[in-house]
Amino acid sequence: MPGLQIFGVPGLPEITKGADLGAMILEAAAAAGTPLESGDVVVVTSKVVSKAEGQTVELADVEVSPFARQYAERWEKEPAIVEIVLRESKRVVRQVGPVLITETHHGFICANAGVDQSSSGAHGRAVLLPADPDASCRGMRAAFAAKGVDAAVIISDTFGRPWREAQTDIAIGIAGLDPVLSYIGQVDPHGHEFRVQALCVADELAGAAELVKGNLSRVPVAVIRGYTWEPNDDASMRSIIRDSERDLFR
Amino acid sequence: MPGLQIFGVPGLPEITKGADLGAMILEAAAAAGTPLESGDVVVVTSKVVSKAEGQTVELADVEVSPFARQYAERWEKEPAIVEIVLRESKRVVRQVGPVLITETHHGFICANAGVDQSSSGAHGRAVLLPADPDASCRGMRAAFAAKGVDAAVIISDTFGRPWREAQTDIAIGIAGLDPVLSYIGQVDPHGHEFRVQALCVADELAGAAELVKGNLSRVPVAVIRGYTWEPNDDASMRSIIRDSERDLFR
Repeated sequence: MPGLQIFGVPGLPEITKGADLGAMILEAAAAAGTPLESGDVVVVTSKVVSKAEGQTVELADVEVSPFARQYAERWEKEPAIVEIVLRESKRVVRQVGPVLITETHHGFICANAGVDQSSSGAHGRAVLLPADPDASCRGMRAAFAAKGVDAAVIISDTFGRPWREAQTDIAIGIAGLDPVLSYIGQVDPHGHEFRVQALCVADELAGAAELVKGNLSRVPVAVIRGYTWEPNDDASMRSIIRDSERDLFR
Repeated sequence: MPGLQIFGVPGLPEITKGADLGAMILEAAAAAGTPLESGDVVVVTSKVVSKAEGQTVELADVEVSPFARQYAERWEKEPAIVEIVLRESKRVVRQVGPVLITETHHGFICANAGVDQSSSGAHGRAVLLPADPDASCRGMRAAFAAKGVDAAVIISDTFGRPWREAQTDIAIGIAGLDPVLSYIGQVDPHGHEFRVQALCVADELAGAAELVKGNLSRVPVAVIRGYTWEPNDDASMRSIIRDSERDLFR
């Protein structure tokens, strides 16, 4: 049967600071009987990358600013978390009641700057997004290449979106694979240019991987096999961050 | 190998008004050696549904209003297309230069109300979104059930989104499968509630299907096999359309 296969990589241990995530994924995939292969797209949940990179903050160590404190008290939020969210942001996009949507230093727009207090290994710790998710992906891609496996890597996170309830997994980092597949200038059988000009396959791959990873299970890594891509070592999620002049929903 | 398989359904003929799409998909999947099975999620590109349902408009038949005409002339758009987009809309969300983002009568927010002039089978015809995509999905699901196949059905379209360049396929209609998988009230191993409370799996499934359908190929239908879902005949995409009071980006 042609097409794609998507499967989780089970058996990864709890990830702690300094973990060699690339090596651990290679080992876990092999142990599960599904060793990584060249051509695979490996999708890794951001939280385990953050933990491996020590992107965590002890809440007790955070000095809370007056603005963060009054907002947290007004809406019954954890003051240290609000402070961390503001520090991880370069701009508040919307602040409506308890909802705080900001633009991160990477340029991603999401609730709470992607800061997470769940599953952090301790009650009093927050997990931040990776500092440079593209670089993290390049590191894992290099670890796979060192074992002869030419695989693309995506780091995914779970974001909300305007107008639609519920969230989806999208890409926040990439290596090896261009995040966008462009049809610009191509025409259909009737000679019209395609209405759809460019697809963000990185986000579609990240969402597809979520379907097997789930959020309750402890399977933070999934493999997509059978997707055709051209290796591109200049790939970066930066290319899909819309310039503010083109952004109609600031 | 556990996990998902995703494959296209090749061999569908050109779809015209009155086509029995459910029967044609069953037949094409069987002819391709991959007959539909109970448990499958069948993802159908909206355009073929629209064509089967006659949701097309001859541009020559459209009486263009003064507002549509002056806007079309100012930005070198086809006046009849602008008129059709406005008729398909209940509200203009953003109108900036040539970009026209509206809320459709279904409640979807997208460019040009989802109206498409490409691949329409003639130069002078526009393809609208299906009038009631959930109902269209229920019709196909019933056609499959009549042959003993308990499959979920999703209709997908390609939408842009704020803040990120490029587009992705998302769901605009569904039958059999709840579009949202909720984790509300569930806790992680450390006792925290999940930051992620509800995932729009319908959109993730639609995006995953796009990876095998593509937009250039003539494969408007894909099958996702191995995804676990609870049959729910009350499923509707209406449940993910955000109430305007909760919408921060009107």
